[in-house]
Amino acid sequence: MIYMGCDYQEGAFPQILARYGETNLVQQPGYGEDVWTKRARDLIRAACRAPEAEVHLLVGGTQTNSIVLHGMMRSWEGAICCDTGHINGHEAGAVESKGHKVLVVPGKDGKLSAETVEAYMKDFKADDSWMHCPQPAVVYLSQSTERGTLYTLAELEAIRAVCDRWNLKLFCDGARLAYALEGVGNDVTLADLARLCDVFYIGGTKCGSLLGEAVVAKPGALPCFFTQQKQQGAVTAKGRVVGIPFEVFFENDGALYREAGRTGVRTAQKLQDAFIAKGFRIDAKSPTNQVFVTLPKDVAERVAEKVIYSTWKVNDDGSRFCRFCTCWATTDEQIDAIIALL
Amino acid sequence: MIYMGCDYQEGAFPQILARYGETNLVQQPGYGEDVWTKRARDLIRAACRAPEAEVHLLVGGTQTNSIVLHGMMRSWEGAICCDTGHINGHEAGAVESKGHKVLVVPGKDGKLSAETVEAYMKDFKADDSWMHCPQPAVVYLSQSTERGTLYTLAELEAIRAVCDRWNLKLFCDGARLAYALEGVGNDVTLADLARLCDVFYIGGTKCGSLLGEAVVAKPGALPCFFTQQKQQGAVTAKGRVVGIPFEVFFENDGALYREAGRTGVRTAQKLQDAFIAKGFRIDAKSPTNQVFVTLPKDVAERVAEKVIYSTWKVNDDGSRFCRFCTCWATTDEQIDAIIALL
Amino acid sequence: MIYMGCDYQEGAFPQILARYGETNLVQQPGYGEDVWTKRARDLIRAACRAPEAEVHLLVGGTQTNSIVLHGMMRSWEGAICCDTGHINGHEAGAVESKGHKVLVVPGKDGKLSAETVEAYMKDFKADDSWMHCPQPAVVYLSQSTERGTLYTLAELEAIRAVCDRWNLKLFCDGARLAYALEGVGNDVTLADLARLCDVFYIGGTKCGSLLGEAVVAKPGALPCFFTQQKQQGAVTAKGRVVGIPFEVFFENDGALYREAGRTGVRTAQKLQDAFIAKGFRIDAKSPTNQVFVTLPKDVAERVAEKVIYSTWKVNDDGSRFCRFCTCWATTDEQIDAIIALL
Amino acid sequence: MIYMGCDYQEGAFPQILARYGETNLVQQPGYGEDVWTKRARDLIRAACRAPEAEVHLLVGGTQTNSIVLHGMMRSWEGAICCDTGHINGHEAGAVESKGHKVLVVPGKDGKLSAETVEAYMKDFKADDSWMHCPQPAVVYLSQSTERGTLYTLAELEAIRAVCDRWNLKLFCDGARLAYALEGVGNDVTLADLARLCDVFYIGGTKCGSLLGEAVVAKPGALPCFFTQQKQQGAVTAKGRVVGIPFEVFFENDGALYREAGRTGVRTAQKLQDAFIAKGFRIDAKSPTNQVFVTLPKDVAERVAEKVIYSTWKVNDDGSRFCRFCTCWATTDEQIDAIIALL
Repeated sequence: MIYMGCDYQEGAFPQILARYGETNLVQQPGYGEDVWTKRARDLIRAACRAPEAEVHLLVGGTQTNSIVLHGMMRSWEGAICCDTGHINGHEAGAVESKGHKVLVVPGKDGKLSAETVEAYMKDFKADDSWMHCPQPAVVYLSQSTERGTLYTLAELEAIRAVCDRWNLKLFCDGARLAYALEGVGNDVTLADLARLCDVFYIGGTKCGSLLGEAVVAKPGALPCFFTQQKQQGAVTAKGRVVGIPFEVFFENDGALYREAGRTGVRTAQKLQDAFIAKGFRIDAKSPTNQVFVTLPKDVAERVAEKVIYSTWKVNDDGSRFCRFCTCWATTDEQIDAIIALL
Repeated sequence: MIYMGCDYQEGAFPQILARYGETNLVQQPGYGEDVWTKRARDLIRAACRAPEAEVHLLVGGTQTNSIVLHGMMRSWEGAICCDTGHINGHEAGAVESKGHKVLVVPGKDGKLSAETVEAYMKDFKADDSWMHCPQPAVVYLSQSTERGTLYTLAELEAIRAVCDRWNLKLFCDGARLAYALEGVGNDVTLADLARLCDVFYIGGTKCGSLLGEAVVAKPGALPCFFTQQKQQGAVTAKGRVVGIPFEVFFENDGALYREAGRTGVRTAQKLQDAFIAKGFRIDAKSPTNQVFVTLPKDVAERVAEKVIYSTWKVNDDGSRFCRFCTCWATTDEQIDAIIALL
Repeated sequence: MIYMGCDYQEGAFPQILARYGETNLVQQPGYGEDVWTKRARDLIRAACRAPEAEVHLLVGGTQTNSIVLHGMMRSWEGAICCDTGHINGHEAGAVESKGHKVLVVPGKDGKLSAETVEAYMKDFKADDSWMHCPQPAVVYLSQSTERGTLYTLAELEAIRAVCDRWNLKLFCDGARLAYALEGVGNDVTLADLARLCDVFYIGGTKCGSLLGEAVVAKPGALPCFFTQQKQQGAVTAKGRVVGIPFEVFFENDGALYREAGRTGVRTAQKLQDAFIAKGFRIDAKSPTNQVFVTLPKDVAERVAEKVIYSTWKVNDDGSRFCRFCTCWATTDEQIDAIIALL
Repeated sequence: MIYMGCDYQEGAFPQILARYGETNLVQQPGYGEDVWTKRARDLIRAACRAPEAEVHLLVGGTQTNSIVLHGMMRSWEGAICCDTGHINGHEAGAVESKGHKVLVVPGKDGKLSAETVEAYMKDFKADDSWMHCPQPAVVYLSQSTERGTLYTLAELEAIRAVCDRWNLKLFCDGARLAYALEGVGNDVTLADLARLCDVFYIGGTKCGSLLGEAVVAKPGALPCFFTQQKQQGAVTAKGRVVGIPFEVFFENDGALYREAGRTGVRTAQKLQDAFIAKGFRIDAKSPTNQVFVTLPKDVAERVAEKVIYSTWKVNDDGSRFCRFCTCWATTDEQIDAIIALL
């Protein structure tokens, strides 16, 4: 069986496991004060051209989204989020569990636009009773998005400008950031994100680590964050477990993190091209590692015998709207095998 | 430098890293549905003689304590805890952050007693205004305790009886359970804990894993727990990262978990014996891997040049109340080197 | 100036103030154990034909909605609510502040339908990842709704059936219940609500009391509710302040509560009839005390000189979508004065 | 039966009920924007010699304590409180329900001292792991205290100095402030509290109103507080219900609020003097409206036939440690009747 259902179905880059092994019995302090985690933080700051940035390592995406948003907001504040945003759906109400409303605005192809945020804020303030409502405080977006799409630099700059106008903060969920950075046509760098966002994170789990997400925050954006992390059960006692992967990712100028992205994108694009060549319906062409396609009933069923993919909707004619998700570990052999089934 | 400050200053048993490596590119579902995690759950159920138990894998101790207690309680309920209990001190208010008061009762050598819980409940209900107070719902204790001590089976049975009398649940924090199970004079087994506790957990992080805690719950004790875990950011997408260590610990009849405990206890006892032989003050002899001793000023300073240990109090005469903490990775060479400094 | 902006711009029925005065220096226990509150509870149980019901008195609507929903749900659960539902908009995220997601479904004229709830639940369970989502646990609706409309008995019965099918609880926000009970064509009684809902409340603040909402719950639906109320700061030490109004409302077979409703509905209908006679646009005719109308620019401005009403939207042609809200205290003189301005 | 169990067993000053009546049908905006509430705010600012202060009206004490503390703290912060402090005991964990740990320090006669707070902070920061703990952010105290005692101005100045040294805020619970202001030997004025505290409140419920507490905050101390209040269900739609009592209390230079205090204190002192004259044990002489005494068994029983008082402890010899609580409504006839029973 070939698994294409998501991007966390293998372990980690062998280089990461090797580093665990090489350092294994070296005694070091816990809680992120070990030498490897410190180096990882420095490497990330360098990669982001943000020498003043604070870097915090957490375990997973839902955890990171909810704790960071909680840290960026006061209790009466909420986060503006696209209808398809991850925090609005499959995070089990994590943001709400910390007391904040997710303020949903309509998206397009998984993306917010500066215009929709602007319109939301205008409507919000036009309501005489706006003080009776949760106060919008943060704009949440994902790069790449839950639909595999990418924000352009111009789009992010425009959203930042809206944020400045309305005194909103900007947070970018980078669970799949490796695939965004290497996405087709991408023009947004780590340095851009560090400059434009108050906080963003560099995904590890979906990009070739066993676990780990690296939060990059402007100074002061996440006050007393260690205590916040600890309070939310998001500090790993053996900080090395999340520090080492990011050291390995970002040493050598970030070569491994780029490789993760390139492999995921290349294999996904190959598959997407095959879907297009076969004439299957693609609503929004993906530049990253998630491919969305509507497969005819017979094809969908034939593929399902050998490949596990995500079915998001079964249409009345039996065709299926599906997601295929590649990753850093996907091989050409796997893609070729799937193509052979089409 | 020798680190004896805590039990998470090395990585993991090489066997665990090896298993990560062997399984690394095998594709499996995420979120704990992989074959290794499933096997780990079965092995734990067998080790606990609890075929019906639910086993949930989380990342770390603070996370586990707060999420499990939240899952065991309704919003108006609180947990009875010894003054030195971990949830009352160094967990950054994690339990309170989920809305519950920690109801503190005085302990002795780090332990609750059935009598103090009984007295607490009697006083509680004797107050005409008890409905104006957080309702005690769970008794929290640690095995081994934060002071390195152990509950005997008789003590646990007595606490359970008090719980039954007052309709309280019992939760045992087993962050250091390996060292408890192999503690000097211990008579409490995994099966006893599974029988007496509504929920307890088997510590991984401090016992030779990179991370991971295995929660063992009576059926129904933690309803809808996957969603709870997810909501609290405590599900690892690549569940294998916490599943594999427990598979390795508990295959072969739990040989590796026992070895972890034995090594930690043996080296700690050797050090404690040396302290006693030197005539240093030991307030409560520890049967486990944490040794508490008052070192004279000159000794404390001499040792500090080569060993990192925890100083809990500096007395007026310059002597120090210290904790030395061994673990699964501590070597005789390290202990001998410390003894040579005394 | 005539205030028609909402239904809390006067004080209370003089009969309620009189009762405060008559009982003022009589010493009684606090926290709802006074004789008047006890009698109020009995009268409400009788009016609801629900001798087993638990009756709890709270202060205001937002407080009641959030505390009751919190009490009906576990921490990982959410409430299904119509897009225009009060808890989704102007309650400042009160439900989320207690940790629960408001699960929004599209409404029509301010109402949920059994069909939309059924469809929501089907879609929810059809998602393979439903365990990654907040679990729907309660259906929230308002009688009368935020758009002044009413559920028919058949509609409520159908929603109850959907709730039963999916194991959902039903909660009805009755902040404006007096106006619903006396609404044009209403066929839903207090007894029907007590039978169909797990919990509902009888609004006091908007219906002629200074403050107070009476929660009616099936036995066991709100466990340990006094402690919950206390924890959430929703117990009035001098319980008489909320008990007495309900005693006055519901003695004499509920004559005063009916009078409140009748006055509000009669005056609103008179105004609505005048709007219709003038040919102003009414999207959905209201059977209760809230009238929604689109006034031409010149009329809107002329009326605004003498009447304070709510403008919900200013259209491009300057016409305004407005709400006029009458209440128990509205007089024919006020209505005639407004009509004279049209 | 004479009720002396607490200070909320009567209604309100007739002057307050009269004002409700006089203003009853005057239409005014809701949510505290009515003319009477605005005037009440101005009168309070004047009485506090704090023209810049923000004044917010809430309903009751537990509500006020928990919402104000939540507003003064970030999520990882806690409040330092005396062991006998109201928020630590009989508020059902309200502060914890909003996520904050109550950090308990030992008190004497119901009071914190500058020294204990200083020692607490020194110990806190001396712990290497202080970042793993909830961060102390506010000092909570009550004037008068739960034991009827009073802080002197010098004591409050000293506590303020400690707060400044450690960057702590100061909050004073004034549920019984009327009785404190008129307490025997009191030297703390409203202006002192407004100057020394970041936030304090002027109790209404226990001091002669049906309900209501008036929060006085330094500018900026409670950001966006209306939304916070609304979110926590603590805004009364008919704001007049809490505004009018404070208008009546504080017009005429606060004559009625002083009268409330004087009556409560005078009657309590008369009773306390009788206890002393009879030779009953008084551990700490109360200068306010709460009298604590140990009554011999026979006296306690004889009194209990005609008077409801609070028994805090039954001693082994049958004697009882009791609280008698007078208030603004207590009469000399009631006190004389009790004295006649001694």
